[in-house]
Amino acid sequence: MFKQLAKKEEHGFEWLDLSQPENEELKQIAEKYNLHEASVHDCLQPDHLPKYEAVNGYCFIIFRIYADQQSMEADTVQELTDKIAIFFSDKYIITIHRQEQGFVNSIADLLQTQKLKSTRQLLNILIKYCLQTYDAPSAKLAKDIDYYEECVFLRSRKVPLLKGLYYLRRKIDLVRRMLILSYDIIDNLDTEDEGNVNTRDTRDLYIKLQNVYDSLYDNINQLLNAYFSTSSQRTNEIMRVLTIFSVFFMPLTFIVGIYGMNFKYMPELDWHLGYPAVMLLMVIITIAVFIWFKRKGWL
Amino acid sequence: MFKQLAKKEEHGFEWLDLSQPENEELKQIAEKYNLHEASVHDCLQPDHLPKYEAVNGYCFIIFRIYADQQSMEADTVQELTDKIAIFFSDKYIITIHRQEQGFVNSIADLLQTQKLKSTRQLLNILIKYCLQTYDAPSAKLAKDIDYYEECVFLRSRKVPLLKGLYYLRRKIDLVRRMLILSYDIIDNLDTEDEGNVNTRDTRDLYIKLQNVYDSLYDNINQLLNAYFSTSSQRTNEIMRVLTIFSVFFMPLTFIVGIYGMNFKYMPELDWHLGYPAVMLLMVIITIAVFIWFKRKGWL
Amino acid sequence: MFKQLAKKEEHGFEWLDLSQPENEELKQIAEKYNLHEASVHDCLQPDHLPKYEAVNGYCFIIFRIYADQQSMEADTVQELTDKIAIFFSDKYIITIHRQEQGFVNSIADLLQTQKLKSTRQLLNILIKYCLQTYDAPSAKLAKDIDYYEECVFLRSRKVPLLKGLYYLRRKIDLVRRMLILSYDIIDNLDTEDEGNVNTRDTRDLYIKLQNVYDSLYDNINQLLNAYFSTSSQRTNEIMRVLTIFSVFFMPLTFIVGIYGMNFKYMPELDWHLGYPAVMLLMVIITIAVFIWFKRKGWL
Amino acid sequence: MFKQLAKKEEHGFEWLDLSQPENEELKQIAEKYNLHEASVHDCLQPDHLPKYEAVNGYCFIIFRIYADQQSMEADTVQELTDKIAIFFSDKYIITIHRQEQGFVNSIADLLQTQKLKSTRQLLNILIKYCLQTYDAPSAKLAKDIDYYEECVFLRSRKVPLLKGLYYLRRKIDLVRRMLILSYDIIDNLDTEDEGNVNTRDTRDLYIKLQNVYDSLYDNINQLLNAYFSTSSQRTNEIMRVLTIFSVFFMPLTFIVGIYGMNFKYMPELDWHLGYPAVMLLMVIITIAVFIWFKRKGWL
Amino acid sequence: MFKQLAKKEEHGFEWLDLSQPENEELKQIAEKYNLHEASVHDCLQPDHLPKYEAVNGYCFIIFRIYADQQSMEADTVQELTDKIAIFFSDKYIITIHRQEQGFVNSIADLLQTQKLKSTRQLLNILIKYCLQTYDAPSAKLAKDIDYYEECVFLRSRKVPLLKGLYYLRRKIDLVRRMLILSYDIIDNLDTEDEGNVNTRDTRDLYIKLQNVYDSLYDNINQLLNAYFSTSSQRTNEIMRVLTIFSVFFMPLTFIVGIYGMNFKYMPELDWHLGYPAVMLLMVIITIAVFIWFKRKGWL
Repeated sequence: MFKQLAKKEEHGFEWLDLSQPENEELKQIAEKYNLHEASVHDCLQPDHLPKYEAVNGYCFIIFRIYADQQSMEADTVQELTDKIAIFFSDKYIITIHRQEQGFVNSIADLLQTQKLKSTRQLLNILIKYCLQTYDAPSAKLAKDIDYYEECVFLRSRKVPLLKGLYYLRRKIDLVRRMLILSYDIIDNLDTEDEGNVNTRDTRDLYIKLQNVYDSLYDNINQLLNAYFSTSSQRTNEIMRVLTIFSVFFMPLTFIVGIYGMNFKYMPELDWHLGYPAVMLLMVIITIAVFIWFKRKGWL
Repeated sequence: MFKQLAKKEEHGFEWLDLSQPENEELKQIAEKYNLHEASVHDCLQPDHLPKYEAVNGYCFIIFRIYADQQSMEADTVQELTDKIAIFFSDKYIITIHRQEQGFVNSIADLLQTQKLKSTRQLLNILIKYCLQTYDAPSAKLAKDIDYYEECVFLRSRKVPLLKGLYYLRRKIDLVRRMLILSYDIIDNLDTEDEGNVNTRDTRDLYIKLQNVYDSLYDNINQLLNAYFSTSSQRTNEIMRVLTIFSVFFMPLTFIVGIYGMNFKYMPELDWHLGYPAVMLLMVIITIAVFIWFKRKGWL
Repeated sequence: MFKQLAKKEEHGFEWLDLSQPENEELKQIAEKYNLHEASVHDCLQPDHLPKYEAVNGYCFIIFRIYADQQSMEADTVQELTDKIAIFFSDKYIITIHRQEQGFVNSIADLLQTQKLKSTRQLLNILIKYCLQTYDAPSAKLAKDIDYYEECVFLRSRKVPLLKGLYYLRRKIDLVRRMLILSYDIIDNLDTEDEGNVNTRDTRDLYIKLQNVYDSLYDNINQLLNAYFSTSSQRTNEIMRVLTIFSVFFMPLTFIVGIYGMNFKYMPELDWHLGYPAVMLLMVIITIAVFIWFKRKGWL
Repeated sequence: MFKQLAKKEEHGFEWLDLSQPENEELKQIAEKYNLHEASVHDCLQPDHLPKYEAVNGYCFIIFRIYADQQSMEADTVQELTDKIAIFFSDKYIITIHRQEQGFVNSIADLLQTQKLKSTRQLLNILIKYCLQTYDAPSAKLAKDIDYYEECVFLRSRKVPLLKGLYYLRRKIDLVRRMLILSYDIIDNLDTEDEGNVNTRDTRDLYIKLQNVYDSLYDNINQLLNAYFSTSSQRTNEIMRVLTIFSVFFMPLTFIVGIYGMNFKYMPELDWHLGYPAVMLLMVIITIAVFIWFKRKGWL
Repeated sequence: MFKQLAKKEEHGFEWLDLSQPENEELKQIAEKYNLHEASVHDCLQPDHLPKYEAVNGYCFIIFRIYADQQSMEADTVQELTDKIAIFFSDKYIITIHRQEQGFVNSIADLLQTQKLKSTRQLLNILIKYCLQTYDAPSAKLAKDIDYYEECVFLRSRKVPLLKGLYYLRRKIDLVRRMLILSYDIIDNLDTEDEGNVNTRDTRDLYIKLQNVYDSLYDNINQLLNAYFSTSSQRTNEIMRVLTIFSVFFMPLTFIVGIYGMNFKYMPELDWHLGYPAVMLLMVIITIAVFIWFKRKGWL
């Protein structure tokens, strides 16, 4: 689908928006605007990573924006983010994306009411909207971490959390990586020469997002550690039970073994009270072990 | 409740303070000052996170201040912090909050004695007071960490500390997050253009708080690690007891097993001293094991 | 092999390129251009680390570029990287390398179409191309980490991953080290006095690569930790089985031991229902243990 | 005790030094110099944390200096540090402290020979001396860490180190905290407007101390980890012994159990060589297990 | 031994070099150049840490340079480094050291060919040479780490590595500490006022060394962790064997126990095929356990 969102006569520059572009459409536009073949090729790859490239005559930007509709197990670049490709020069901006992006229309509406001086200004608004798609998920991810944190620390009966923690960590890590790889784009937008208050705002947003996701990443890693630690704490509990049983039964089993020996001359065996005496001995030993354990705090 | 703390005629600007505002009141004010619906809506959400927004004509700030009266298990944004919403322009400041906040009155008193030049100056004082609510708890949290540290390292009998450590960590983490999210507010207050000694002071306080809470966060995380480590050290102790018992009784049980066999031709069984000899053998083995253990340092 | 890629008359400077140089060739050139013996000696060492040296009259640079054709177990400087030595002065650039490097020809082609003002400009392009060899592997290494991450977290049956993780970590660490050691080169290229937009670009690329590899290094280290942690989690599972068996059989073995004793006066032994009664007792004990385990959640 | 260390006529400013001040004395001075009640109150609290406060007319500083005479178990602010309170204006400096501080006299001597231009200069010297009290302990703490490091890594017989490590870590952590909290003081001393070479020196010293204590803190934390790790390595050793014993005796005990069964028709029992044959079998099994263990490297 | 390496008439300043100075010599020079007693005293302490001190009239510097001839177990300041003391003013430089230092002669040679403008320039060269003594060892230490890394990760048969790792870590840590403590010296050499390209070079070298040793320190710490982790992984293996044996033999031992009971009425005992039937039962149990283990992946 093809939309002309800004016209030269009206705004001083053109803005073309293609959503779910077909190859034919793309070729036509590439010819018309003299776009490099390599750039168009990158446009069509659904999992291309963020990129900034200054080709002669125009800039080619690939940005990945957060896609909200993902399942819990989504963990690849393509599942978690949508690609938006931007061709940008003084005279035109072309935006290409697969999914309909709501913010494109919002910006188009904005264009009607507000006069933009240059394509650079429009680009800035676009990138800012793209970045903002990462803002809301951070709060959701923080809540997810809080939930798992509570599970790990407060619930003694462990449900299998490892898988959930893994997917959470992957999501956070992936966003962090997208942000790192998008640095070029932000840095070329907010240069010393052409930056202004608005591009500085975009950079501030970028840095804030980086801080937020870095702190999420720290949190999820510490949570993983805590998960493993509490899980290894259970070994402790199991060892305790094992030890208690061994220490109770080992001496008893030894004693009954003694009187199971077949020596001809074992006076105890012939005693009338031999059997009850041994039973009593074993009760005493059991009580002694019991008291010793109580003192150690193992019971 | 509605209070007019500064009047235009007197101070050059207005300051309205609403505590526990009713919807009606809020609507009236929103109309009068031309406040955006979205801002008013945010005002009413009790768990809204810190935010800075420049709407046309005014700035809208949500700040969360530390609420002192919380229980030990308080660990949500709403339990640990109170929201204060600020509408700010050159001509007026409107502060909205649920709980009565003592510092609002302190600032109002200050206004009587000290002439402020602009709303920006008042805003700075407000934000500084808000930030200062985080100062005292940091000392308390540090003391709590010290207490748990002593428990973990010096007391051999473990009380269940995990829950307490968890809540402590949550509190510190939450404050850290609030501070990160408040960065925008501080940064827009102390800009290069309009900042002065006072706003710089506010920023200094902000940075100091960040450092203090970061260091608290490091401490609590290390403490958690130490807790898990000392807890896994106990396994060591339990293993020792288990091993000692096994090594003592296994050979003995084996020996008594031998003479429990029913072979017809076992000369030892017919010996007159067979029984005491075996008993002696077992005593010797026990002593040997004992000496070996002493040397290993396990007894 | 010896190629003259730029001539003084045409470009204002000379560029000599030697691939797989023989000692004789090298000596001739060293004499002609008055190169220091020590530099030439460094040229011939295949595993020399990155270096920047200002000798009188010229600069001597050793850069190591990523070599793509390595096996999975490649983990030394020589296996993972190729050396490229550069002699550089205002009047000439000499590049020396063992393997044919594709980008040398690309730059030579570029020279035909684009006029370079100075050798410094050419050097910048060279170094940038060299740095770019590290760009593509980072994506591949990230994918490898993702694969191992999935193995560690999601597959319960452990394949031996340690070796693979080790080689992955070594590769990342080695690239990081090469980048650290190359800092001098970048810093002397992009000085305050002689730097320009292009050298700044090179530095930006350098910093981006450093960030990317630092983040990879963090990831692989955390992955290693997770690997060890999941592996120690298995101990937990094994302990559980061991404990279950011990707790089931220890009391049973003790009881059968009792009635294996040879006391003359053991009334139970003469009872007609003694044997089935004991068997019943043991069944009851087994069931009791079973219920207890179910409650503990160990079965 | 009350001393006038500098007089207005002579030095252009006054310096009063009170050591172990009585309430009466303090009140008199507070009145004379118009000091705020809250400041005086803070003066009297022995465990008050470092603080910088600009009251109208003067500055109030609380600094904590390292107290050398502490025992090994000293771990509170009060035990490890002494408080020194400073009131400071253009015209006077008042220093208040409980313990006699040697450096006060040193500075007083200095005043006789060297002309100071302002109280700010004197304040700078005071703070520098205060900071320097933290310098010597850092070397001692580093030595202590080295000693414990050696214990943990090289001595196989573990003495109980945890307590010592705990107190060491507390001391380092406490100094770090004091330094963080003293930042305000240093920052207000060495401002952009009024700083000079000397205040810059003080800041340099402050930063150096921070680096040194940060690195000590890292070291002690890593040492703690190593301590726990070596301690859990012992479990390994204990497990080895336990396993060896079990694997040796379990099959043997089973075999003697077989021939302890009371079946009527067990041909082996009637064999003349049954007993020695079984004994031989058990020797062979023992040797087989022994060889297997040797190969595994467990013996 | 005493050498005059630069004379006032010739170079504009004096340079005295004392190697293995005797007390008498030192005293004479101290008198002649009016050196402070405390400085001379520090000169004589063999384990004095790096230090920069501006005494009136001259600067006193203690630098510690890496000493190459150390054994594997060298881990003290004195074993790993040599002290070099420098007195420095506008008119003279005095260098004092115990061991002959090759680079002193190199610099002396340099002085013959190259005219230095000031003692500061000479000092810069001296310090740079001193710093460079740390450069070569870093590569050697990196190689050592690589070797241990290979041992830890790839060799299943563990040799005792802990001691080696300990000494390696100590060396790296000690150099790091020396560098931290030498910061003052570098910072006072390369000041804003008197620094130039050459002193900046020295600072660059200092920073590079710091980065290199920091990264080495990170590596050795991670290696230590990996060592402990692989070592605790072995526990896993041992547990497996122990569990397998227990699970095999516990049921068997129980069964033979049953038929070792002495009840009068145990029908199985009188059966003709009782004995072989029980043996068969035990074989079946063994096979069942075997299959179960195979499925669990423990065999």
